[in-house]
Amino acid sequence: MLKNIILAAGEGTRMKSNTSKVMTKILNREIISYIIDACDIENSKTILIAGKNKALIEEKFPNLEIREQKIGEDYPYGTAYAVSMALDLLEDEDDIIILNGDIPLITKNSLNSFYNFHKENNNNLSVMSTEIDNPTGYGRIIRENGKFKKIVEQKDANKDELKVKEINVGIYAFKAIDLKESLKKINTDNKSNEYYLTDCIEILNNENKKVESYVASNPDQFYGINNKKELAEAGSILRKRINEYHMLNGVIIENPDIVTIEKDVKIGKDTLISGPCKILGKTSIGENCIIEGSSRIEDSEIKDKVKIDNSVIEKSFVDEGTDIGPFSHLRPKSKLGKNVHIGNFVEVKNSNIDDGTKAGHLAYIGDADLGKNINVGCGVIFVNYDGKFKHRSIIEDDAFIGSNSNLVAPVHIEKEGYIAAGSTITKNVEEGNLSVERAKQVNIPGYVEKKKKRDLKKLKEQN
Amino acid sequence: MLKNIILAAGEGTRMKSNTSKVMTKILNREIISYIIDACDIENSKTILIAGKNKALIEEKFPNLEIREQKIGEDYPYGTAYAVSMALDLLEDEDDIIILNGDIPLITKNSLNSFYNFHKENNNNLSVMSTEIDNPTGYGRIIRENGKFKKIVEQKDANKDELKVKEINVGIYAFKAIDLKESLKKINTDNKSNEYYLTDCIEILNNENKKVESYVASNPDQFYGINNKKELAEAGSILRKRINEYHMLNGVIIENPDIVTIEKDVKIGKDTLISGPCKILGKTSIGENCIIEGSSRIEDSEIKDKVKIDNSVIEKSFVDEGTDIGPFSHLRPKSKLGKNVHIGNFVEVKNSNIDDGTKAGHLAYIGDADLGKNINVGCGVIFVNYDGKFKHRSIIEDDAFIGSNSNLVAPVHIEKEGYIAAGSTITKNVEEGNLSVERAKQVNIPGYVEKKKKRDLKKLKEQN
Amino acid sequence: MLKNIILAAGEGTRMKSNTSKVMTKILNREIISYIIDACDIENSKTILIAGKNKALIEEKFPNLEIREQKIGEDYPYGTAYAVSMALDLLEDEDDIIILNGDIPLITKNSLNSFYNFHKENNNNLSVMSTEIDNPTGYGRIIRENGKFKKIVEQKDANKDELKVKEINVGIYAFKAIDLKESLKKINTDNKSNEYYLTDCIEILNNENKKVESYVASNPDQFYGINNKKELAEAGSILRKRINEYHMLNGVIIENPDIVTIEKDVKIGKDTLISGPCKILGKTSIGENCIIEGSSRIEDSEIKDKVKIDNSVIEKSFVDEGTDIGPFSHLRPKSKLGKNVHIGNFVEVKNSNIDDGTKAGHLAYIGDADLGKNINVGCGVIFVNYDGKFKHRSIIEDDAFIGSNSNLVAPVHIEKEGYIAAGSTITKNVEEGNLSVERAKQVNIPGYVEKKKKRDLKKLKEQN
Repeated sequence: MLKNIILAAGEGTRMKSNTSKVMTKILNREIISYIIDACDIENSKTILIAGKNKALIEEKFPNLEIREQKIGEDYPYGTAYAVSMALDLLEDEDDIIILNGDIPLITKNSLNSFYNFHKENNNNLSVMSTEIDNPTGYGRIIRENGKFKKIVEQKDANKDELKVKEINVGIYAFKAIDLKESLKKINTDNKSNEYYLTDCIEILNNENKKVESYVASNPDQFYGINNKKELAEAGSILRKRINEYHMLNGVIIENPDIVTIEKDVKIGKDTLISGPCKILGKTSIGENCIIEGSSRIEDSEIKDKVKIDNSVIEKSFVDEGTDIGPFSHLRPKSKLGKNVHIGNFVEVKNSNIDDGTKAGHLAYIGDADLGKNINVGCGVIFVNYDGKFKHRSIIEDDAFIGSNSNLVAPVHIEKEGYIAAGSTITKNVEEGNLSVERAKQVNIPGYVEKKKKRDLKKLKEQN
Repeated sequence: MLKNIILAAGEGTRMKSNTSKVMTKILNREIISYIIDACDIENSKTILIAGKNKALIEEKFPNLEIREQKIGEDYPYGTAYAVSMALDLLEDEDDIIILNGDIPLITKNSLNSFYNFHKENNNNLSVMSTEIDNPTGYGRIIRENGKFKKIVEQKDANKDELKVKEINVGIYAFKAIDLKESLKKINTDNKSNEYYLTDCIEILNNENKKVESYVASNPDQFYGINNKKELAEAGSILRKRINEYHMLNGVIIENPDIVTIEKDVKIGKDTLISGPCKILGKTSIGENCIIEGSSRIEDSEIKDKVKIDNSVIEKSFVDEGTDIGPFSHLRPKSKLGKNVHIGNFVEVKNSNIDDGTKAGHLAYIGDADLGKNINVGCGVIFVNYDGKFKHRSIIEDDAFIGSNSNLVAPVHIEKEGYIAAGSTITKNVEEGNLSVERAKQVNIPGYVEKKKKRDLKKLKEQN
Repeated sequence: MLKNIILAAGEGTRMKSNTSKVMTKILNREIISYIIDACDIENSKTILIAGKNKALIEEKFPNLEIREQKIGEDYPYGTAYAVSMALDLLEDEDDIIILNGDIPLITKNSLNSFYNFHKENNNNLSVMSTEIDNPTGYGRIIRENGKFKKIVEQKDANKDELKVKEINVGIYAFKAIDLKESLKKINTDNKSNEYYLTDCIEILNNENKKVESYVASNPDQFYGINNKKELAEAGSILRKRINEYHMLNGVIIENPDIVTIEKDVKIGKDTLISGPCKILGKTSIGENCIIEGSSRIEDSEIKDKVKIDNSVIEKSFVDEGTDIGPFSHLRPKSKLGKNVHIGNFVEVKNSNIDDGTKAGHLAYIGDADLGKNINVGCGVIFVNYDGKFKHRSIIEDDAFIGSNSNLVAPVHIEKEGYIAAGSTITKNVEEGNLSVERAKQVNIPGYVEKKKKRDLKKLKEQN
């Protein structure tokens, strides 16, 4: 069986953070989640070596096998020591892939190919490598007649070795038995006084075990994160990768450098994303939609031909042909039917709005069920809260809710109920009735003239 | 006479689209429209060879001469066959420029220079070329003593030819008679079984006709679009080109990479564009304006010293010194005078607002004519719709419309009319009158204490 | 004493502007302000040579020593003439740094190091240089045995000199006495008929004075601005520099290419900036905040754990744990306590809002003092303006302000006061009282049926 060991105990002091490095987010997801996803190869199991961040990781990934590497002066240091935390979980016949927890751009594809290479060649140890134009600072893979010979660190490399562009990316596949045996033989005889996993390579090599190197393409995927500038850089690479995927699938992204789409979001072809939009979480968007302005969509299902302009949509459902915005907000549990119109400065929360209903301006629809083809006038407020309890209201098909009226929940407006503008409605309205709550308009002549005199007097008193 | 033939029948399957490739938009305009514009050379005529997209193109460009190339197993394939659709429109003495419909970055300047080169040299055929650093994959222009000799495709090129950086960009100018004669001589003896227009080059060359190559600068302009990643890339080049034009004209674009300005928009000097703004359609903006945040302006005329912050402006007119936003929306047919103040969360639609009038917050002004120096209070709504008909209202100079009041159209507030806050006004108000629609305020002691007990009881019942 | 002379009289015609070039803003600050800041070396004094822009600069920088260089046909031209405007301010024993006013990327660090180089080497004249890959067009620093020999202009350079990558950046340090003496010796015997400051170099060199060149790193910092494309380019470099500084300090900037942070803004670690935000002026932001969407924050103090979404904040204070937006607006003098909730489409102005108070939607709070744990319902308006005067209101702890109600200032709602939805409140409400201003709800059967008939008749009449 394949067992992946992710080394994630590092604290990442250069991140200057109170959060664990691997739990820092990149494009809305924890760094470590990308590595966990990439390790999710068929018939494999993942073991994570945590440090102080164990509780935090455990909480977020409750199904993950996590071991804690104690850190402090009472404990040894080094990658080999970290790996040893997992030894009791490894069967001799297992294959083991070891990688770092701070390389979120690594792909499952690469790990899979690397694993296949390891198995097919029946290697005792496989070293993953890649080729880069400027290898300065990296450990070089030295080959002889094309075969892996050794790894040479920058400081130990001779002139010819310095020219080698194939570098060690720090990902290894071992036969578990070889890992176990070689780990026993390493020591801390080095400047840092640490147990280095890389020592296993030399040990197995010297024992004439089969050690080979696998050259992966796309060096980007080994980008490691040590500070928040590198976090942004990795985010940029990931953003490009995701956006390119969608564009090649037929999505129109007008300016991909400013659009953030989280991994696993689905978007249908011919949908246009124009502006600095963010599309996050478990969101799916249909075909022929227009998402524009500074819109954010989270955990929502958007069907075909929907238009969303400069709006924020959270945990909601929006059916075909509906348009929203500019400047509107669907809060969680909003369910909009087909051809609904939500205009500007409208908030919807925990409400169902059926086909063809319109709320064009400055309205709040909260905790309500609205039927079809209702006109929710400008400034209408569903008064759902009495200071202690929230209540629901029901509005039936074809009702007309006049501007600036308040529907004090719980209230029920039946079919074609007609609420006059400016009314506060506390009692139900039956089918086809007009309901009005309004005083008499009184016009008082000469008021403005008197007010001017009063204002003038006041001004004089003030001065 | 010059006749341009644009080949636009390709379906562009890699676009993964239900829309015709050339009708896909880039910076708010169809790809094909850029080529049509570039072809609009004095005394020329443009003929477009469409395919399945004929009806769509015809609808958008009703004045264009369009021929349909039937596509399917009953019809020949190839660029030469496409061109032959237009043969009956060509007089022997015409000059013919042939180019593809998917290169939106082509400039009129280049086509013009190419045409002049063709005429001045009295060529039978002119081939447009450009020089690029990495010519791999392109047909090379092979010259002998500086003169055009032949085009060699990548696969047929020898070592020296592979080094040539001058490539064929696929744009040709023919004397019509030579085009006609050479087209007759080509066949489908090639792997794809297609009629290739490029065969005409060899034919004319072999007949010792005058064939020359014209080297255009700015290779970017020949960028062809085959998928939506390339669509975005072309959009990026075009965005830079347009923004650079405006910056060199004196417009301040703080971060040009995030600003989208459609072709032909006019902007005055010292206007600042700051933030991911979109300025589209037939929009003109004056001098010394500030356009910021995630604003979008479409088909509008904005005069000098206007400030627009995070707002959407559609088909409207905004006069000098007016400020709008943040977060406001002018819908079509809004006409704002000088020094008008539109604050936050305000919608204006189909209304005239004269100089000095203010609507600072949360208001909707629809279907109304407002005079000068009016104060439209917070939350004021122009109730313009009765569920069936829309009505207009008139507000005269110096009126004061109190907060949260409703003006139920049609209603007329005369000069200095004063509407009390919270009133719903259904009847006209004469000059200088106060109008109030309000009940008596009743204060009920002990209510909160009682409510608390009631709420507590209810809570207990629920549990 | 060190005296810096900034040459800022140039009009910058290529800027195509009505504003003085050096007073044009880059990332919200005048170009010249960056140079003034960089010159602010300990124990130094800065003298600015202005032109027509003198009054403008004087107004903005009232404490700066400014001399005016008259420009026109009656006056000499050239950098040396400009410098001579300041001669009477220079003591013989001073050191003088001379630099241009259009290089906003110059750092104080570089000037400081340059000044130290000048002093430590006891140079008569020090020339600042830098090395760039493509030096074409620049004056080359020619050295002999590593020592400065001369400056050669592009047009006068021989083949070897053209290869030199060390260029003159146009910043000089003189002993004042040498500056004065050499200035006396220069003339206008050149094509442009101008007094060139660079002539002083040759003069002092020929007199065997000690002239040396100091090579500065980061050639970016000498980027000069001549048009608005270069203005944007310099802005881009500065944006990157500032954002990098914050990221390395622990701030998470998701997409740094779209974020604009003004110089001197302070941001705490683990704060996330996501989206095209602008953070300007004297703003400080605490730790663990989230600033997202198209937000703009100006001159404000934001404490820890604050969330701001797609909102505009001006000259305000926001305490810990408070959240704002999406789409809200704090206008100047808003002071929000801890854990305040400002939801969508809410405007606050010149108001104090104490801990735990909520205003979730579509409200305007202006000129008011609110206590703790108040519920400001949806659509509530603080009616603070009577057409002539503004008035303040006071709302005490635990009050409940029902939806769509108007509080007509000055009004005082005591502790636990409860305002019924839709009420316009003009008189004070005592502790624990309910206050309601509302008419009776009247339901009129059959209205809709009648309206339909009426509408139909009207439609027929219209046709």
